[in-house]
Amino acid sequence: MPHVHTAELMDGTALARRVLAETADRAATLTRRTGVAPCLATVLVGEDPASVTYVRMKRARCAKVGITSRHVPLPATTTTAQLVETIEGLSRDPDVHGILLQHPAGPGIDERAAFEAIAPEKDVDGVTTHSFAAMSFGLPGFVSCTPGGIMRLLDAYDVDLAGKRAVVVGRSAILGRPVGMLLLARDATVTYCHSRTEDLSSVVREADVLVAAVGRPRLIRGQDIRPGAVVVDAGYNAGNVGDIDAEGALGRASLITPVPGGVGPMTIAVLLSQTVDAATAQLGLVP
Amino acid sequence: MPHVHTAELMDGTALARRVLAETADRAATLTRRTGVAPCLATVLVGEDPASVTYVRMKRARCAKVGITSRHVPLPATTTTAQLVETIEGLSRDPDVHGILLQHPAGPGIDERAAFEAIAPEKDVDGVTTHSFAAMSFGLPGFVSCTPGGIMRLLDAYDVDLAGKRAVVVGRSAILGRPVGMLLLARDATVTYCHSRTEDLSSVVREADVLVAAVGRPRLIRGQDIRPGAVVVDAGYNAGNVGDIDAEGALGRASLITPVPGGVGPMTIAVLLSQTVDAATAQLGLVP
Repeated sequence: MPHVHTAELMDGTALARRVLAETADRAATLTRRTGVAPCLATVLVGEDPASVTYVRMKRARCAKVGITSRHVPLPATTTTAQLVETIEGLSRDPDVHGILLQHPAGPGIDERAAFEAIAPEKDVDGVTTHSFAAMSFGLPGFVSCTPGGIMRLLDAYDVDLAGKRAVVVGRSAILGRPVGMLLLARDATVTYCHSRTEDLSSVVREADVLVAAVGRPRLIRGQDIRPGAVVVDAGYNAGNVGDIDAEGALGRASLITPVPGGVGPMTIAVLLSQTVDAATAQLGLVP
Repeated sequence: MPHVHTAELMDGTALARRVLAETADRAATLTRRTGVAPCLATVLVGEDPASVTYVRMKRARCAKVGITSRHVPLPATTTTAQLVETIEGLSRDPDVHGILLQHPAGPGIDERAAFEAIAPEKDVDGVTTHSFAAMSFGLPGFVSCTPGGIMRLLDAYDVDLAGKRAVVVGRSAILGRPVGMLLLARDATVTYCHSRTEDLSSVVREADVLVAAVGRPRLIRGQDIRPGAVVVDAGYNAGNVGDIDAEGALGRASLITPVPGGVGPMTIAVLLSQTVDAATAQLGLVP
């Protein structure tokens, strides 16, 4: 029988479990020392079923690790001004340590204005321009959760980034752009691709490290994966399908994130870890 | 005689002259309507000869276009705290519309902290994280002057960016990183290279649009320029030498910025143009 190469899976579920265990320990210590549990406010506009599910999952995880969550549901008719006012209130509220505005905020909402109403020290989801600049310049601050989760996965599997070609497919404000900046800060040679990129295949073939983050099922063909590449699939598509043709990629990549069980679990883990960071700072404890 | 291909020069001196003429017109109109001339504060720490010359050039240009400049020289012994305090004072001063802190601020100074003391609405040099995020997300705000000048040059020569491979060599906070973000916002496929990049030549050979911004004389060899590429040399080196081997590049590029007379003049032009923008906004006129 011929030898069939199969990539090693990057187990986001297992790593997230470790991050969450450590987060629970820190939350317990903080609560014991201060008498106050870390508190995450979750803001949800409308009742989009996927968003409702995401927020419910995040709140359930909060409860498991000893973080209080304060749910702020708003009707689908909420205006940008009303949403901004609500978030500004949470930014001022000393009982709230972190703020999550579930994305997408809904049609007709200026999501950027709403994000910017989050105080930088409570931006545990890493969505403000302040956090983006911090990620870009290596300054103190929170990271966007999915990019942060990707970096933790790469580190857990000892992926060497310095000098390597990293290709990011997607340039969204909370995923593609920031993960590229985090990779650049770690000395990768970073290429941003997107919907307007000509000949995506040829760019993908250059990648030592490939991050797909567009949400188009199987956009990237297995045959375009460079042999030995590290492949991170951050695409969310119906039916547990990623942005990368996983079957094809498995035979070429050295490391690959499964979908599900790769990037997804890390996103929540980073969110909760940063919520405890925020609470620790706001409650005046040295982390 | 064989035909020898020679790239067309992108004439930054001529374009800067047009931008400055338009800036002078706008400054004159503003002054006539409000009785107040636009005012740029120039902050210089120490007496580094190159920095002294740059500031003198900028102030002379201000005078030519009807912008008042207020020079704030500080001793080389200035601390970060003193510099921040000075800049915060200028940020509050209603008579000052724009603030330039000459880079580099000097050894021992936390330049990032000093930059962040500039009020976003007075950041006409585009050095704050606020401006960086604005450039990155296409939000209203000022651009870093050299990146902004490069984009104006590319536009003046009708360079098509959408879908094209743009390679930025250099990742400084006020040049490499922001020009990459501006190119990405214009739908280029953007690659960031830097000192840790492995096999720079092969990356450079991919570039439809090449921006060199590192300050290492002739780092990029002419033979690595893709035939027909658009070549922007933003490198500053002694002896009017750019980062690119100009002789070699001339025979391969379609368009190239000369050194001097390419990017350099545009930097000051964008600074002064943005100073008039800032004054217009602060004096309450609709631009």
